[in-house]
Amino acid sequence: MNENKKIIYLDYSATTPIDKEVLDEMQPYFSEFYGNPSSVSEFSKEVKMAIDVARGKVSEAINCKREEVFFTSGGTESDNWALIGTAIAKREKGNHIITSTIEHPAILNTCRYLEKLGFKITYAPVDKYGIVNLEYIKRAITTKTILVSVMFANNEIGSIEPIREIGEICKNNNIVFHTDAVQAIGHVPVDVEELKIDMLSMSAHKFYGPKGIGVLYIKKGIKIDNYLHGGEQERAKRAGTENTAAIVGLGKAIEKSNLDMPNENIRLIGLRDRFIQEVLKIKDTELNGDMNNRLPGNVNICFNGVEAETLLMALDLRGICASVGSACSAGSLEPSHVLMSLGLSEKKAKSSIRFSFGKWTTEEEINYTITMLKDIINNIKEG
Amino acid sequence: MNENKKIIYLDYSATTPIDKEVLDEMQPYFSEFYGNPSSVSEFSKEVKMAIDVARGKVSEAINCKREEVFFTSGGTESDNWALIGTAIAKREKGNHIITSTIEHPAILNTCRYLEKLGFKITYAPVDKYGIVNLEYIKRAITTKTILVSVMFANNEIGSIEPIREIGEICKNNNIVFHTDAVQAIGHVPVDVEELKIDMLSMSAHKFYGPKGIGVLYIKKGIKIDNYLHGGEQERAKRAGTENTAAIVGLGKAIEKSNLDMPNENIRLIGLRDRFIQEVLKIKDTELNGDMNNRLPGNVNICFNGVEAETLLMALDLRGICASVGSACSAGSLEPSHVLMSLGLSEKKAKSSIRFSFGKWTTEEEINYTITMLKDIINNIKEG
Ligand SMILES: Cc1ncc(COP(=O)(O)O)c(C=O)c1O
Ligand SMILES: Cc1ncc(COP(=O)(O)O)c(C=O)c1O
Repeated sequence: MNENKKIIYLDYSATTPIDKEVLDEMQPYFSEFYGNPSSVSEFSKEVKMAIDVARGKVSEAINCKREEVFFTSGGTESDNWALIGTAIAKREKGNHIITSTIEHPAILNTCRYLEKLGFKITYAPVDKYGIVNLEYIKRAITTKTILVSVMFANNEIGSIEPIREIGEICKNNNIVFHTDAVQAIGHVPVDVEELKIDMLSMSAHKFYGPKGIGVLYIKKGIKIDNYLHGGEQERAKRAGTENTAAIVGLGKAIEKSNLDMPNENIRLIGLRDRFIQEVLKIKDTELNGDMNNRLPGNVNICFNGVEAETLLMALDLRGICASVGSACSAGSLEPSHVLMSLGLSEKKAKSSIRFSFGKWTTEEEINYTITMLKDIINNIKEG
Repeated sequence: MNENKKIIYLDYSATTPIDKEVLDEMQPYFSEFYGNPSSVSEFSKEVKMAIDVARGKVSEAINCKREEVFFTSGGTESDNWALIGTAIAKREKGNHIITSTIEHPAILNTCRYLEKLGFKITYAPVDKYGIVNLEYIKRAITTKTILVSVMFANNEIGSIEPIREIGEICKNNNIVFHTDAVQAIGHVPVDVEELKIDMLSMSAHKFYGPKGIGVLYIKKGIKIDNYLHGGEQERAKRAGTENTAAIVGLGKAIEKSNLDMPNENIRLIGLRDRFIQEVLKIKDTELNGDMNNRLPGNVNICFNGVEAETLLMALDLRGICASVGSACSAGSLEPSHVLMSLGLSEKKAKSSIRFSFGKWTTEEEINYTITMLKDIINNIKEG
């Protein structure tokens, strides 16, 4: 599978390698079944069918209808579409959107853009475990509220939000509910009907599929403007020549991830919890986020008195790849907005590191990383 | 190269197979060099460099600076970004945009969307060869004009527009000039500096690269809003995890197409002209568009008295894949807006077919197609 074993990759939340089985299914669609799926020729039938099969796999995975699945270029496009498409379509009805303070930049920066255009955004706070304040959301709702968007699981600290409860609140108030499930899909069970989700974003490269492909699920009847205008693709809602190979890959990847999930999660939770336990034995360490209510592969640790950048570089030299939490703003000198939202000091936020595990993470790698961590921290503190 | 030789593919303008050399360069970036290019780790350096190399190849191919190249999810996104990004960024300055009547739906439907938002669009007409009326553009310019967008080469009839002249007009009037060069890049020489182009859209799957990846070239200093908001990718102008493999593919594909262009174009023009000559010997046929001023691989023929759909199906049965001109609206019952713009009757427009040739098109295929066409037309007219 993951042939490149020279490094210990503990950054699965940033992106994953494509699973070999997934890549194998994609291969014929690059140069063999390359026809334009929107063409009417016999030659394109196979391609059209392959897209249909992938769409079916997505709909099964999240329990929606096929025609509610729209392929996009990734999580970012799905998030932009959900927010801007709703805002523009419903601007006569209202100009108020509710989200949370710990969303991904794909949501937060889109919100800031909408603010520039005259929309009002409420940012609901979270508790010290990163769980959004439901009462705050309830109280923030006005007659002008057109959308609530709260992420399914946080990318930095792995906290899983009370999606069912938010879905309920939105339903009772007749407000559309979007969730950025980019970190959740393929990792925890998601049933849009049961959870009363109206729109949902996913991105294939977070669950062993290819980069540059995602989905926006849009429940039938939801009013939303198109975001990419042009040809009649995706039932005239998302224009652009279909990215066949990537769509096939996303379908296979979501199917496989869901199949593997029960066993894989037991394994990952085992690794995660042992890792947390061991690392917390190092002096002056704290776990960020909740011990239980978190993604199976997520660990986020504050190493008090150690700069995250220094620690990351030391790990990097030892072949271990972890991260400060968000690749999108890597290199920026700002402390994580997520950790600050939990109430951490800037100092603590800048001493925190995310380790994210995935299907090729082994017990050996975990053990090695623990040893290295102890070693590095000792060196730094003594030096 | 193109292994799938069971069919005669004459629909290269709709999409192309990925060149084997291009696909080979992409392969390592799926599962081996899969790191997130925005991450700071050593592991991601290789990936970051590969993207940089691809960016360099694009900049060399169209003669712009590296930092003027922004990777997108394809031609459609590039077109939407250019138009909507400019419209919103400059809405204080003016609300008027000039385009042409024969643009791709990615431009035309975006214009219609902007009209809904209060922008004014002027659609410049074309002559009977599909060449846009320069005088009309000049006269249409007002103090409120913020953008001119005219395609480089038309996707249905292959007409190459007077880009240099439009660039000159825009420059003299201090108006931003965007061109949808999706059909031109890799097929005819494009030099953005020489032609005074401020923004340019391309899409890799039209020149033997992968689907789902494109570029918007934005000249330095041009004021444009972001279109996908989120992380800091693409110098904080286009968010979303970089589609590494596809970007590498686009880079290789544009480099290779430009290298092959001189010889390939001589070959294609030879095939094209012989094909046109032979087909025009069939009774009641006419060439749509200009004899000379057209893309090397484009042929568009009106078969008077024959319905295009019927003819396409008959060709399809004989293993020949051609099209009515635009895959994006395939299956729609409307006559082509491009052909109608040339002044064709609805009847003639609905009797027209596009044959588009590419690098695996052989003389044999052309000969076979000509024979089959004569045969089919005879049958239809007698039947
Ligand atoms: C929670 C969340 N939302 C959105 C995104 C954006 O997805 P993509 O980079 O695939 O566009 C990411 C990852 O980058 C994410 O973790
Ligand atoms: C002239 C032109 N513009 C834009 C596009 C849209 O490109 P894409 O489908 O890759 O988004 C196409 C092709 O579909 C085209 O021919």
